[in-house]
Amino acid sequence: MEFSSRLLANAVDEMSQLPGIGKRTALRLVLHLLDQPKEQTEALAGSLTELKKHIKRCRNCHNISDQGLCEICSNSSRDEKLVCVVEDIRDVLAIEATQIFNGQYHVLGGKISPIDGIGPSQLSISSLIKKVENDQVDELIFALSSTVEGDTTNFYIYNQLKDTSIKLTTIARGIPVGDDLEFADQITLGRSITQRVPFENSLKKD
Amino acid sequence: MEFSSRLLANAVDEMSQLPGIGKRTALRLVLHLLDQPKEQTEALAGSLTELKKHIKRCRNCHNISDQGLCEICSNSSRDEKLVCVVEDIRDVLAIEATQIFNGQYHVLGGKISPIDGIGPSQLSISSLIKKVENDQVDELIFALSSTVEGDTTNFYIYNQLKDTSIKLTTIARGIPVGDDLEFADQITLGRSITQRVPFENSLKKD
Repeated sequence: MEFSSRLLANAVDEMSQLPGIGKRTALRLVLHLLDQPKEQTEALAGSLTELKKHIKRCRNCHNISDQGLCEICSNSSRDEKLVCVVEDIRDVLAIEATQIFNGQYHVLGGKISPIDGIGPSQLSISSLIKKVENDQVDELIFALSSTVEGDTTNFYIYNQLKDTSIKLTTIARGIPVGDDLEFADQITLGRSITQRVPFENSLKKD
Repeated sequence: MEFSSRLLANAVDEMSQLPGIGKRTALRLVLHLLDQPKEQTEALAGSLTELKKHIKRCRNCHNISDQGLCEICSNSSRDEKLVCVVEDIRDVLAIEATQIFNGQYHVLGGKISPIDGIGPSQLSISSLIKKVENDQVDELIFALSSTVEGDTTNFYIYNQLKDTSIKLTTIARGIPVGDDLEFADQITLGRSITQRVPFENSLKKD
């Protein structure tokens, strides 16, 4: 697409840098903004600039935060001895939405993935090990996605901690609540049988 | 989704105001920007603000433009007596990409659509009529989409101009070049028969 307007071309170019946004979609979004009051564009541009300028990482859990210590880590009613290891803020949001977990998080910032050039040193693993060594944690719950990269990351951390007295657990894998067995994939169904739990456990309410 | 970070929540809120962008996609886009160098966010925010602040409408054709008179209208090699009536800049881009048309455009800025509260006065129709009355135009080519709204708009303009000596045409509707007849919709195929053209015309190269 060749725009006669340089201003329009610039805006479309920048918008189409975003993942999943092609030139055509970018043009649609930019033309939409042109139709709206200028306050909307200013609010969008302002909020992005502010975010980039002032956002911090929580010094305890490495989650995205407005302050040096995030809301969850600074909440004294949460159990700081119980730490859930996740990949990024989306996992924190998902677990928080369940309202089941009352511990703290440790956000790794990704998974070990040699193919993408991500090694252990790019992730906040050493601070996790240090937390454990300083006796700050009783139990670590691994909640990474069960992909090759997730399993590698789990295993890497496990290897460094297996000789400590800390309790290491992982979230349960199995058939989702409400799903039919016939539509479940074989690996999940197989694992749900080998890792079966006492029937009484299923009677527990959350 | 409840974010513990107000900065993040603001950015996601503003991003999800864009059409077709939900909260989840907005979060993905914003987290992507957080991972990139801050120059990218600044360039995006800056280009949108600049666009909104400095963009103009061409005083002749009403297309989006950086100057008071757009590149097409100020190009003296183009035929100003031949004017193509289109809905918005996307149609201009599509026709320009064909490199077939050497006239000027008149961008209406929409179609008459009572259901969306858009009447003739919100569109740049009166300036088109004035252009014709001032004898500035020999031929008007209607190139609006053939929907109820497009046909209504065509007819509204036609009614005001039918008593003038101007030549009124519309782009040809028919089976797309290269398409199989069996997959064409009935209305298009029917119209391609009633509005058949002399065979010699099909021998003309563009």
